[in-house]
Amino acid sequence: VLVTNGDVDHVTGLLGLRERQPLIMLATQNTLDRLGENRIFGVLADDMVRRVSVTLGERVEALPGLHVEIFAVPGKVPLWLETGSVEIGVEDGSTIGVTVSVGGTRAVYIPGCAAVSESVRAQIDGADALLFDGTLFTDEEMIAAGVGTKTGRRMGHMPISGAGSSIDALADIATGRRIFIHLNNTNPVLIEGSAERRATEARGWEIAFDGMELLL
Amino acid sequence: VLVTNGDVDHVTGLLGLRERQPLIMLATQNTLDRLGENRIFGVLADDMVRRVSVTLGERVEALPGLHVEIFAVPGKVPLWLETGSVEIGVEDGSTIGVTVSVGGTRAVYIPGCAAVSESVRAQIDGADALLFDGTLFTDEEMIAAGVGTKTGRRMGHMPISGAGSSIDALADIATGRRIFIHLNNTNPVLIEGSAERRATEARGWEIAFDGMELLL
Repeated sequence: VLVTNGDVDHVTGLLGLRERQPLIMLATQNTLDRLGENRIFGVLADDMVRRVSVTLGERVEALPGLHVEIFAVPGKVPLWLETGSVEIGVEDGSTIGVTVSVGGTRAVYIPGCAAVSESVRAQIDGADALLFDGTLFTDEEMIAAGVGTKTGRRMGHMPISGAGSSIDALADIATGRRIFIHLNNTNPVLIEGSAERRATEARGWEIAFDGMELLL
Repeated sequence: VLVTNGDVDHVTGLLGLRERQPLIMLATQNTLDRLGENRIFGVLADDMVRRVSVTLGERVEALPGLHVEIFAVPGKVPLWLETGSVEIGVEDGSTIGVTVSVGGTRAVYIPGCAAVSESVRAQIDGADALLFDGTLFTDEEMIAAGVGTKTGRRMGHMPISGAGSSIDALADIATGRRIFIHLNNTNPVLIEGSAERRATEARGWEIAFDGMELLL
């Protein structure tokens, strides 16, 4: 299990893998520390779950022949670790992307991203597949739906459409398959045949679904 | 939401109700304190989630016309709060049952129970429905299946069958419907038509299922 950040939607699933499920948990030292000091994650028993600290830019063989490498992307601290004012777009390793490679094939997984910086562009360029943050279709979607008071940007997510959209920001970077992941339940691209879905597909993007398998 | 104890399988679902879901959370002060001091549960924002401390024996109107009353049952502290040796069977309020009543109709819900004490008997007696801890069918079932090293009793649960079983302990108490809940995935009563299921049903018990509705 590679934990890309400490937010609730990225770490709660670990609790479902308690109590005697052997696994290796890879994360930055910062994320491991935050989980380590939170007592409920102690149900992942030390004798069953090996914690492996990975550092930005380090190439780790996670499975035989499969390498992972994490890199910082613009983001923010997890919601439950926010204190006072929050800086959005920091590239300090609290939000990361992952490059997964087998032989010469490379997929890039970025579940949260506040901006496509030059370093993000460099990571994505030439990948065989890009799985990218598709949380919201429009930045104010949750406010419009009456289910929240935050914009996507306040949560550290670029919108798929509109000014400063991820589709536009990523349009001129060469990649193989492009797939939106990490979709909020307000996102209209989840509805097959919706205008927003068709518009997204017309720009060359796929929409991820539960149980999706990717063969490269 | 009435939280009957602080164990992972009873509190993790709260994280799925973040971030802007208004609700009232009822629990003992001890459970509220344990959750309150654990930072990840802070995603249940104070302005959306009202914490209500309930005490043993206190009758609380949780919904208009629906009253709940909690009572201590023999149990233990949650796994993630265990320190050193653990006393099984303490009746200190760390594990509770709930009586839910509407008018003269009463259901009793006990998801974890280490023993049927006299006080538990008194709570159950005459209920229209009893939903009771059915974690394991046999005490050593998880060890036999190779998925764990603990007996049911070590986890604070009576087995459905065998010496000191819940079926035997509850046999002479008058109740309406009797339903086993909180079933571990190793429990053979989950398999329709299994010998263990038939034996359980023959003793007058039903097996709960996802989405079960109870009309009394």
